[in-house]
Amino acid sequence: MKCRRCKAPAVIEIPRHNAAFCRECFLRHCREQVRRAIDEHRMFVPGDRVLVAVSGGKDSLALWHLLTELGIDADGLYLGLGIGEYSDESGRYARDFAARVGAGLHEVDLPTDYGYDVPGAARATRRSPCGACGLSKRHLFNGFALEHGYDVVATGHNLDDEAAVLLGNVLRWETGYLGRQHPVLPATDGFVKKVKPLVRLGEREMAAYCVLNGIDYQIEECPMADGNRHLGLKTTLNALEEQSPGTKAAFLFGFLARGHGRFADASDAERETLAPCSGCGGPTSTGGLCAFCSLRVRVSNPQPVALRTGR
Amino acid sequence: MKCRRCKAPAVIEIPRHNAAFCRECFLRHCREQVRRAIDEHRMFVPGDRVLVAVSGGKDSLALWHLLTELGIDADGLYLGLGIGEYSDESGRYARDFAARVGAGLHEVDLPTDYGYDVPGAARATRRSPCGACGLSKRHLFNGFALEHGYDVVATGHNLDDEAAVLLGNVLRWETGYLGRQHPVLPATDGFVKKVKPLVRLGEREMAAYCVLNGIDYQIEECPMADGNRHLGLKTTLNALEEQSPGTKAAFLFGFLARGHGRFADASDAERETLAPCSGCGGPTSTGGLCAFCSLRVRVSNPQPVALRTGR
Repeated sequence: MKCRRCKAPAVIEIPRHNAAFCRECFLRHCREQVRRAIDEHRMFVPGDRVLVAVSGGKDSLALWHLLTELGIDADGLYLGLGIGEYSDESGRYARDFAARVGAGLHEVDLPTDYGYDVPGAARATRRSPCGACGLSKRHLFNGFALEHGYDVVATGHNLDDEAAVLLGNVLRWETGYLGRQHPVLPATDGFVKKVKPLVRLGEREMAAYCVLNGIDYQIEECPMADGNRHLGLKTTLNALEEQSPGTKAAFLFGFLARGHGRFADASDAERETLAPCSGCGGPTSTGGLCAFCSLRVRVSNPQPVALRTGR
Repeated sequence: MKCRRCKAPAVIEIPRHNAAFCRECFLRHCREQVRRAIDEHRMFVPGDRVLVAVSGGKDSLALWHLLTELGIDADGLYLGLGIGEYSDESGRYARDFAARVGAGLHEVDLPTDYGYDVPGAARATRRSPCGACGLSKRHLFNGFALEHGYDVVATGHNLDDEAAVLLGNVLRWETGYLGRQHPVLPATDGFVKKVKPLVRLGEREMAAYCVLNGIDYQIEECPMADGNRHLGLKTTLNALEEQSPGTKAAFLFGFLARGHGRFADASDAERETLAPCSGCGGPTSTGGLCAFCSLRVRVSNPQPVALRTGR
């Protein structure tokens, strides 16, 4: 197997591009794909202060590395989720990487700074831990960026992630989510701009990118994510991709080209109903506490009054 | 396991309805689902002459039986595809059923009436046999109905079929197909009205319906369909349904409620470019021969001139 570009021995094959690459040409390929995503979707403007959402996994560290390689300075924010040894290790990978590239890393710790952890939130809400985790991340990355003057939050969502989210949204025809699923969410009142520069690169490519660059990352799946619907949808798409390479990319990019715009009104309609949260002042559609503040109330008071008086 | 309606011992469980039924209540359930589909989508108007597309499989025979039970008189049209013993057997099931219920059955035979069969068409076009088969069916059912004064063609597409087709259309964001995927296609110039009354019933329910009514049907999968993409998509959806009963129904009905209308313009745009075929006079978007007439030309002249002179 030879590199498509330079004919040197290849180290990785990418069936959906019908291509194989040597180390150097593969790293160049990754940079090109990220540059193309950034240009195509106008992710950054000169002078933007960029914050990378860092988990310590392959995607967020590769993203941070790639942005640096492309000359885009970015600080990181690591959010400690309080998932035991898994979180301790993840934090170490994030800190080691920041030290290695000399980049600034902020840290927020759910247990220390907000008095709860993801396992506790899952118990208190009797819902999936992934729900409480995603909610906390979205709220805190956005709030931190606004508070500290960052213009853009960049996340490590890759092609596999986005295709799986899209499949989930399409299976239920969640029109509001479909209207908002895009590599760029522009800034609006109370929301900082969000971008996903890895949207043209697959999960396997990001793992290879880290390995080939000697970037150590948290290799374990989150222990709370077992049986998670998102992982099931990834498995579904992997089987389809195996049968027909390029399925995921055609699905996601076809949506962006010919589907997304048809759902814009559904997203706008939801956004029009936003009002300030009576707890934190952030935007919410509930008219009372936002979902994050409600979660904090439930975690600090896990037995709702209605249930206790119902005996 | 007891029947949800009458508490008698159940013969079938339907996880997506979280229900089980005895024989009588299950047959009633099937009639109710078909009646609901017919009413909801205004499939028939009084006095309609209805033609059922009959393959000899469970879906088309169950459909014909169900329409009769609901007081909707319908004739059948069996199309012989020339797939050896499989087609011979399928034809016998269709004829036996028609004789049993005393309904009128028309027959068209591809080899006798049009000089080709599906295996031959696949060889000549070097494409999937399912493509040539679907194309022939669509053209001939439509043409027969127009010629013989039928107002509506009813096909046995069930929930599983429609969900799999939808998944295929969504994976590639085929906007024109998405705009046309509906339980009712109204009559337009050159096209008779098409309806799918089984859209609320699954494949397993149709098999049970036939068994419980003593309807003999072609139980074999078509021998040409091996490795067919549509069957792969059904397998994908079956796995998702297994994890989460109701996935297929939510996917299809969510699309009809909140997705379909957003693609209407794509379908209209394709329809605006239709002109009469220079062979059969039927509608085509190619500006020359329609796909069916092109297929017949290729089958009768399997080595295109361009290829022979290219040597």
